[in-house]
Amino acid sequence: MSGYRFYQRTKGVFHDHPHITKLLVVLSVSGGGVAAFSDTRPFQTGYADAAHDIKKKKVVVLGTGWAGTSFLKSLKDPGYEVHVVSPRNYFAFTPLLPSVTNGTVEARSIVEPIRSIVRKKKFDVHFKEAECHKIDTQNKKVYCQSTQDNNLGGSEEFTVDYDYLVIAMGARANTFNTPGVVEHAHFLKEVEDAQRIRRTVIDCFERASLPTISEEEKKRILHFVVVGGGPTGVEFAAELHDFVNEDLAKLYPSLKQHVQITLLEAGDHILNMFDKRITEFAEEKFSRDGIHVKTGSMVVKVTDKEISTKERSSGQTVAIPFGMVVWSTGIGTRPVIMDFMKQIGQTNRRVLATDEWLRVEGCDSIYALGDCATINQRRVMEDIAAIFSKADKNDSNTLKVDDFKEVINDISERYPQVQIHLKKKQLKNFFQLLKHSDDDDELNIEKFKSALSEVDSQMKNLPATAQVASQQGAYLADCFNRMDICEKYPEGPIRFRGTGRHRFHPFRYKHLGQFAPLGGEQTAAQLPGDWVSIGHSTQWLWYSVYASKLVSWRTRMLVISDWGRRFIFGRDSSRI
Amino acid sequence: MSGYRFYQRTKGVFHDHPHITKLLVVLSVSGGGVAAFSDTRPFQTGYADAAHDIKKKKVVVLGTGWAGTSFLKSLKDPGYEVHVVSPRNYFAFTPLLPSVTNGTVEARSIVEPIRSIVRKKKFDVHFKEAECHKIDTQNKKVYCQSTQDNNLGGSEEFTVDYDYLVIAMGARANTFNTPGVVEHAHFLKEVEDAQRIRRTVIDCFERASLPTISEEEKKRILHFVVVGGGPTGVEFAAELHDFVNEDLAKLYPSLKQHVQITLLEAGDHILNMFDKRITEFAEEKFSRDGIHVKTGSMVVKVTDKEISTKERSSGQTVAIPFGMVVWSTGIGTRPVIMDFMKQIGQTNRRVLATDEWLRVEGCDSIYALGDCATINQRRVMEDIAAIFSKADKNDSNTLKVDDFKEVINDISERYPQVQIHLKKKQLKNFFQLLKHSDDDDELNIEKFKSALSEVDSQMKNLPATAQVASQQGAYLADCFNRMDICEKYPEGPIRFRGTGRHRFHPFRYKHLGQFAPLGGEQTAAQLPGDWVSIGHSTQWLWYSVYASKLVSWRTRMLVISDWGRRFIFGRDSSRI
Repeated sequence: MSGYRFYQRTKGVFHDHPHITKLLVVLSVSGGGVAAFSDTRPFQTGYADAAHDIKKKKVVVLGTGWAGTSFLKSLKDPGYEVHVVSPRNYFAFTPLLPSVTNGTVEARSIVEPIRSIVRKKKFDVHFKEAECHKIDTQNKKVYCQSTQDNNLGGSEEFTVDYDYLVIAMGARANTFNTPGVVEHAHFLKEVEDAQRIRRTVIDCFERASLPTISEEEKKRILHFVVVGGGPTGVEFAAELHDFVNEDLAKLYPSLKQHVQITLLEAGDHILNMFDKRITEFAEEKFSRDGIHVKTGSMVVKVTDKEISTKERSSGQTVAIPFGMVVWSTGIGTRPVIMDFMKQIGQTNRRVLATDEWLRVEGCDSIYALGDCATINQRRVMEDIAAIFSKADKNDSNTLKVDDFKEVINDISERYPQVQIHLKKKQLKNFFQLLKHSDDDDELNIEKFKSALSEVDSQMKNLPATAQVASQQGAYLADCFNRMDICEKYPEGPIRFRGTGRHRFHPFRYKHLGQFAPLGGEQTAAQLPGDWVSIGHSTQWLWYSVYASKLVSWRTRMLVISDWGRRFIFGRDSSRI
Repeated sequence: MSGYRFYQRTKGVFHDHPHITKLLVVLSVSGGGVAAFSDTRPFQTGYADAAHDIKKKKVVVLGTGWAGTSFLKSLKDPGYEVHVVSPRNYFAFTPLLPSVTNGTVEARSIVEPIRSIVRKKKFDVHFKEAECHKIDTQNKKVYCQSTQDNNLGGSEEFTVDYDYLVIAMGARANTFNTPGVVEHAHFLKEVEDAQRIRRTVIDCFERASLPTISEEEKKRILHFVVVGGGPTGVEFAAELHDFVNEDLAKLYPSLKQHVQITLLEAGDHILNMFDKRITEFAEEKFSRDGIHVKTGSMVVKVTDKEISTKERSSGQTVAIPFGMVVWSTGIGTRPVIMDFMKQIGQTNRRVLATDEWLRVEGCDSIYALGDCATINQRRVMEDIAAIFSKADKNDSNTLKVDDFKEVINDISERYPQVQIHLKKKQLKNFFQLLKHSDDDDELNIEKFKSALSEVDSQMKNLPATAQVASQQGAYLADCFNRMDICEKYPEGPIRFRGTGRHRFHPFRYKHLGQFAPLGGEQTAAQLPGDWVSIGHSTQWLWYSVYASKLVSWRTRMLVISDWGRRFIFGRDSSRI
C-alpha cells in the first residue's frame, strides 16, 4: 500500500501546486523515480466561500480561447459567480496548431481542460459545454444550445443570466465568400481542423501509392496548396515541407518526386506584416526548399479537384489541380456576433467595437475582447474642444503651455496616439509639439487644433493575435478584481467630456514580438524595437518562449517530450 | 550548421538501428542533451536486390494486425515480393486499447506505421491502404477497394495477383444479431473505437453538467454499461472506474454521486477463462469499487437510451436506461471471410479452418492465421488405421510395444493431444498408455484403438488472442524463410496417410500467460503452470511485459512516458 500512497501524494503535489514556476525534470525512465515533496492538503472544491456572500455578481464568459481563458486565469476576486459557456471544454494553445497538422506536436499536448484551469479558483465557476447563439441585452441573458453528440438525446436549449457579460468568442475563417472554399478547403483554426489535415496528408500519400493511379493523377493528389501568406499559412507550408522531406520521403520513396507545395498570396509578398528582411529571407528559403510561392494570385473558386486563381500580373484565371487545400487568409465574423452587432446598431463593421476599457459600445456591462472585437480608439480631434476647455481653467479661451501641465499625463493616457506621434516626429514631449507649431507662447483653439491635427493618423487597430487576446483577458480580469476599490478611488485619466476620472487605466497593448517559423529548424522573429532575428538560434528562442507560454505543466511537459520524440524518431504517419 | 548535422545524425542512429535492444533514456529535459552515437550509414531502400532475381514469388498479406505484422517482421528471405493490403496503414498494439479509451495511454502511442516496420526489409514490400473484398482462388488474385476519404476522387478498385496468400484479416465484434447493437453500442476493436469512447465519456459528463438536465436524466446519462465479462470488458470497466474516481471526480465534483458502471455477463462469472481465484478476486474488487457486476444477464435489445436484458434467474426482461454502452462479447466473422468460406465449401463454420501448418483447408497456397482462422486439429481416431500400419512394418496386424519406437516422436508431434492426455493421466510416456490398457505385450488394431480412444477429447481450439496471432505470424514467416531448404530436407513428422515426411514442424502454441488488469494499480495474471499472481506487483509485471512487447522504440518510449504523465498529471478530459 505504501507505493500506492506515495503515488497518490506525488500526484497531489502536482495537482495542488500548479504555480510551481521552475522547469522540472519530469521523466526519468532509467531511474524510475520521480522526485517530489509530499503534501496532504485536503482537496479544495473552490465552493467554500459561496455561502458567506449574500449576492454574488454573475459574470458570464463566452468562449475558452486565449481571451476568455486569460480572463479566467487572472480573475481572483471571490465576489463573483462565473459561468463559462463554450463549445470547447478545453483551452487550445493555437500557435502550435500548424505543428499538430504534421505530428511535430500531438493535439492532446496543446490542450488543457478549462475545468482543470479554473479548479483552484476561489470564486465559483460553472462551465457549460454549449454554443451561445443569442445575446439578450434587454433581459441580460444569453441563449445557449448544447454541442454534445446527439446520441445522448438531442440538443438542449437553456439561458444564462448575467450581471456582466464577457464576449470572447473569437472568429471564424474568412472565405471572402469565395465559392467552394467551405466545401473543399481545410481551415486551420481548431484542433479538429489540424487533426483532419494530418489525416488528409496521409490519405493523399496512401492514395497516390495505389497501383491504379496514373502519373498525372499522382501529381494532382500530391499537390498541396496553401492559401494565404500570413504567419499561419507560411508555418504550415514549412512544416509540411519538413514532414514530407524528413519523414514521408523515407516511407514513400517513389512519391517524393511528385510532391509539390504551393503557397498562394494575393499581395506582393508573403509575411507582409513582418519586416522586409524577414519576408525576403522567407521567400528565398522557400525558393531553395522548392516551395512554390505565387504572389499576386487571388483565389476565385475552389472545386473538389481544382483551385482557380486570378493572376494580377496577367489578369488571367488559372485552374490548378490539387490534392489538398488549406485556407488561411485571416479571420471573419461569427454569425452570432453578426446578429449581436445588428441588434445593438453596430452595422457596417467587421467586428464588435469597444472602447479602450473593452466595453462594447452602446451596451451596458458587456465586454468584448480577442478576435471578435476591436478597440475603437477615441480621436483627439473628436474631443479637441473638451480637452482645450479642461486645460483652460479660467475660461480665457487662450492657453499658455504651462496650463497643460496638469492634464498632460491624462491626455497621453487617454489618447495614446499622441505619444506615438511624438516618437515618430522625434519630439521630446507634448510641449515641443505645441511649440513646434507656433513661436507664440499662447494658443487659441484653432492653433491647438492645428498642432494636433496629424496625431490621429497614428491610430491603428491591434492585430488579431493570441498575444493581444491574452493581454486583454488579463487586463479585464484585473479591472474586475479591483472593481470596488477603483470605484472609490478611480485611477484612470480625466474624463475630458465629463467630470471626474475614469475608473481604470485604459487597455494598453505591449507588443512582445512575433515569430514566423520557416521550417528546417529555422525561425524568423520580429522583436520589439525593430529587432529582427533569423535562423537556428531563433528556433531555440521559439522553443523556449512557446514552452514557457504553455498553459499548464502538463502541456509543457507533453510538448517538450513531443519535440524530443520528433527529434529522435521523426513524425508518425499512421492514419488515425 | 553543426547543431543541425548532430540532429540529423542522432536521428539517423535511431532510424537505422531499430534493433537496439536495451532500454534507453530518451528524454533529459534539464540537461537538454540526448546521448547518442553517430552513424552515417547511407539510407537503404531495401530494393537493392530486386534486379538480381529473375522471378520473385509474390506473397500477398491481407491485414496489418498481430498476425500479419508478426509475419512481416519475421519474414527475412529476400526471394519474395511482398504486397500488403490493409485498410489500416499501421499496426496497433490492441492490448492497450482499453487504456486509450480513458487516456491512460494516447492512441498515437500504440500505433506504428506498417511502412516504417518493413522499411529495412531485404525483400520488396508494397503496401496498399485498401480493403480486400473478394478472393479469387481460380486466378490467384484478390480484389481490393481503396479506403481513403472520398474527397480525393471516389474509391479505387484494383486486383493483386499472388503466388502465396496470407489471410490475416482478424475479426469483427460479435453482436449475436442482437437488435440495436450496431446502431447504439460502442465496440472496442479499433483505435478509432477507443477514441470515440473517450469522447463519448466526456460528452456524457458535459451533458450531465448542463443546467436543464434533471436528476433522473443525469443518472441515465452517467450510467455506463459494459456488455461482456471477458478480459477486455473487465479492463475497460476498471479503467473507466479509475478515470471517473481519480480524474473526473475532481473536475465534475457534483456528478460523482450519479455515476454508475454496470458490467453485464451472460455466464455465471466474469473472467471465466481465468483461474477461479482470479475471478473471485475480480468480483470482490469490483464489488468494493462499486462496479455493478450482473451475471446471468443476456442482452436482448439495445435502443438509443435503454438496454434490455433477459435475466436467467427470473426469466424476466429488464430495461435499463444508459448513457453509453460498450459491447465486448467476443469476435464474429468478417463478411469477406464469410464469402470466401462459402466459395471454398467451408460452410457451417465460424472461422476459416486450416491444418496445423496454417494452410486453409481445400485451398492451394493460401494460409490463414490470427482471429480469422482456427486450426482444425487432426483426430488420432481419424488416422488410427494409418498409424497402426505405419508402425506395423511387417504387416503382421499385431504390434509389439517396441515397434512404436520409430514412430513415437512423429505421433507426438502430429497429434499433440497425445502428450496432453499423458500429462493429464500422469503417465510418463506413450508406452505406459499402451501398457495401461492391456497386460499383453502385443496389440492388435482394436486394442490400439481402445488405448487411444480418449486422447482426442483433449483437443481444444486456441483462443482468439494477440499472443496466438503473433506466434502464428512468426511461425509462418519462419516456414517461408526456409521453404526451399525444407523442401529438400523435410523436418516435420511422418505423413501417416502418405509417404515421406511433412515439410515443416506443425504450429505449436506456447502459452506465456494472460493478464487481467483490474484497476487501482492492480492486475491479475495467470501464468504458465497454473501460477496465479494478483495485486500491485503484478501491475508492475504488466507494465514491464507490455513495454517490452511494444512494436518499436518509438511506441515504447511514448507508452512509458504516457504512464509517467498519467501518474503525475492524471488523465486529460479535453473533448478532442
